[in-house]
Amino acid sequence: MTVEPNVPELIRRKRDGAALAPDEIATLLRRYTDGALPDYQAAALLMAVFFRGLDERELGAWTDAMLHSGDVLDLSDIPGVKVDKHSTGGVGDMVSLALAPLAASCGVVVPMISGRGLGHTGGTLDKLEAIPGFRVDLPVEKFRAQLRALGCCLIGQTERLAPADRKLYALRDVTATVESIPLIASSIMSKKLAEGIDALVLDVKVGSGAFMRDLDGARALARTLVAIGRGAGKRVTAFLTDMDQPLGRRVGNALEVMEAILTLQNRGEPDVREVTLRLAAEMLVLGGVAGDETSARMKLARALDTGAALERFAAIVEAQGGDQRAILDGKLPQVATASTVIAPRAGSVQAIDAREIGLAALALGAGRTRKEDAIDPAVGIELLRKVGEAVGRGEPLAALHHRDGRGLDEARKRVERAYRVDDSPSRKSGPLVIEVMR
Amino acid sequence: MTVEPNVPELIRRKRDGAALAPDEIATLLRRYTDGALPDYQAAALLMAVFFRGLDERELGAWTDAMLHSGDVLDLSDIPGVKVDKHSTGGVGDMVSLALAPLAASCGVVVPMISGRGLGHTGGTLDKLEAIPGFRVDLPVEKFRAQLRALGCCLIGQTERLAPADRKLYALRDVTATVESIPLIASSIMSKKLAEGIDALVLDVKVGSGAFMRDLDGARALARTLVAIGRGAGKRVTAFLTDMDQPLGRRVGNALEVMEAILTLQNRGEPDVREVTLRLAAEMLVLGGVAGDETSARMKLARALDTGAALERFAAIVEAQGGDQRAILDGKLPQVATASTVIAPRAGSVQAIDAREIGLAALALGAGRTRKEDAIDPAVGIELLRKVGEAVGRGEPLAALHHRDGRGLDEARKRVERAYRVDDSPSRKSGPLVIEVMR
Repeated sequence: MTVEPNVPELIRRKRDGAALAPDEIATLLRRYTDGALPDYQAAALLMAVFFRGLDERELGAWTDAMLHSGDVLDLSDIPGVKVDKHSTGGVGDMVSLALAPLAASCGVVVPMISGRGLGHTGGTLDKLEAIPGFRVDLPVEKFRAQLRALGCCLIGQTERLAPADRKLYALRDVTATVESIPLIASSIMSKKLAEGIDALVLDVKVGSGAFMRDLDGARALARTLVAIGRGAGKRVTAFLTDMDQPLGRRVGNALEVMEAILTLQNRGEPDVREVTLRLAAEMLVLGGVAGDETSARMKLARALDTGAALERFAAIVEAQGGDQRAILDGKLPQVATASTVIAPRAGSVQAIDAREIGLAALALGAGRTRKEDAIDPAVGIELLRKVGEAVGRGEPLAALHHRDGRGLDEARKRVERAYRVDDSPSRKSGPLVIEVMR
Repeated sequence: MTVEPNVPELIRRKRDGAALAPDEIATLLRRYTDGALPDYQAAALLMAVFFRGLDERELGAWTDAMLHSGDVLDLSDIPGVKVDKHSTGGVGDMVSLALAPLAASCGVVVPMISGRGLGHTGGTLDKLEAIPGFRVDLPVEKFRAQLRALGCCLIGQTERLAPADRKLYALRDVTATVESIPLIASSIMSKKLAEGIDALVLDVKVGSGAFMRDLDGARALARTLVAIGRGAGKRVTAFLTDMDQPLGRRVGNALEVMEAILTLQNRGEPDVREVTLRLAAEMLVLGGVAGDETSARMKLARALDTGAALERFAAIVEAQGGDQRAILDGKLPQVATASTVIAPRAGSVQAIDAREIGLAALALGAGRTRKEDAIDPAVGIELLRKVGEAVGRGEPLAALHHRDGRGLDEARKRVERAYRVDDSPSRKSGPLVIEVMR
């Protein structure tokens, strides 16, 4: 016999600062997924969790309940150590696109299940779909076959993976309960643990363009993510990396695919290259194909120098229905016209507010403000000057790739606002990798 | 043009401790009442208010929005000062039944709109309905006419009075957001202000049988209630009164009507008489029919001594369809059998837990655990010994008026648990009126 839980009493206990028992959490989340627990009670519970947090035991139970609300992939029959990478999201953060084929070309198996962008941050799936023909909705059998064949497959979350998280996330979005470290961490980790991975490298972004703007918050999130992973028996490393200015020089879907291609051609931006190599090296170490960071970086350099990593990317694109020439010849969607934003004075760039750049790209049509919005893969922003670089008066700071002027005025205003140019001594930007947590 | 509010952003601001603007609160509550704002967003907002509170300006706006979600009575064409009394609810608290006709017989106009009991506390409407034929659902025209004719009418909340409060209260009940002082206070005051009163006397109960068990909470609630009333331009006095043991000796609907009749006959319990006279005197002062408490109490004593107050009660009962003989001859519903709870030892009564007595009466059928439960007007509990009184071993402590044994076992256990009898020096109960706030 199932006893119906006294839901208001459980909400009250959480509200008053008591910890819920693992089976109580399991029951609440199971009933919510089934539809037996109404949205309004879930909303009150989420707000109580926002204020009271979850202790380690509750957090494990919460993550576990979301993880087991759907299918959990078992990839143990596929040879090799399965290692994924997840970023908490930033502006111009296309690292996954270069890193996944790079790590795979060095012998790590990368079962990457990504999300879409929402708001000012982009999503890996949207970037991949800028490649003509590329499909992110493969059936699980195809996903497994490609992992065996190419060591990497890049898909979207299926309906059957962590459905409780999908439902809860949609509710959090409309009830102002997104910004809770235990809720963020359990959401990320339930999806990642459902992929059947052995290890995980996390990139927790910090700064104006990141979800976590301050270092303390980012540290707390990273610690929580690592703790959940460890509690589930996985090896997890979290990097805290800078997102005060955008990563690389390109923001927009096809533009970021191009940034990834350039990186795999050894012609990329230094900051993109550095983050990609640090994270990929950790994947190689966690994946057991390199003994330490030094030997991992040698392997990675070889895969870039020989073109093996770029070829692997092209092979993955072809296997997923995309046009190889997009990768090998740069045949990507592009707009006919770009418009520049010029410097109002001479000086050097002191700061570029990543959030404003992300919102400018959004205005041009590179992202969505509602889930049902369509994305224009070609539009976006090229940053012609980055922090620390000099600019003359009237010289271009950025190029806005727009579709017939759509959103151009707003984008221009935002980009102008994002750049701070003056003649103070040229500021060097801070360290790119701020901290590593294992 | 109406701009749709960004609801998650408003919830977020409240969540993060900022104050919402009066028009933002008005919009949120109007949309909730209209059904445009879903329950889940309201639930998240309520929980944020639970944690963050409402400042004085927000509280005024919140109350005002609920008040104006429906009709607001205008009684200005009825001669006399309109004064109501409201109790936050207790066990055996039938004071309204005696006080309303008593104050009316002294010249105050009492437009009393009451609620039903839920849980261990009783409700004035349920008590009134124990009088055969009595109707609490009168149309507004009848309510007005009776106020003119008899200076008092006792009805239930109509659908059109503060509908936002009714909807919000139902949501709070299932989302663990009841116990919030600003939400409680705005709920009470929005209903009372909708009655078209000039002044209000509040009885904030404190102790085991009250909603507020500790003095600090009760004080905070009383202060908030007075502040809202003053903000709305009304004269408001709040009394903090003891609810550690039940008021009077009778708990149950017809039994409490009898307690009221006895009080109006000058034969009632001293504690009921004292609370009734204190509150009624304040109504007379606020109502301008007495200059101070002393002269008010003289008027009240006269109304009791001459039988004018009792006759007024009978007239009100007759006007509202009830049987006058219920009041004049005590013809009230009663059960055939009562069963006593006896003292397990000799000594004096140290305490009677009011909440347990309320729950015992509930078990007998005097109240409801769900809104749709039917009430038995005749059942209830007579307290044969109160705090400070001596009892011999095997002598009765209480009589349980039950309907064919329904709920008798539970009621007996609860009453046994409620009484603490030992031979410590006979404890005098604390002061009945703990504090007065104006």
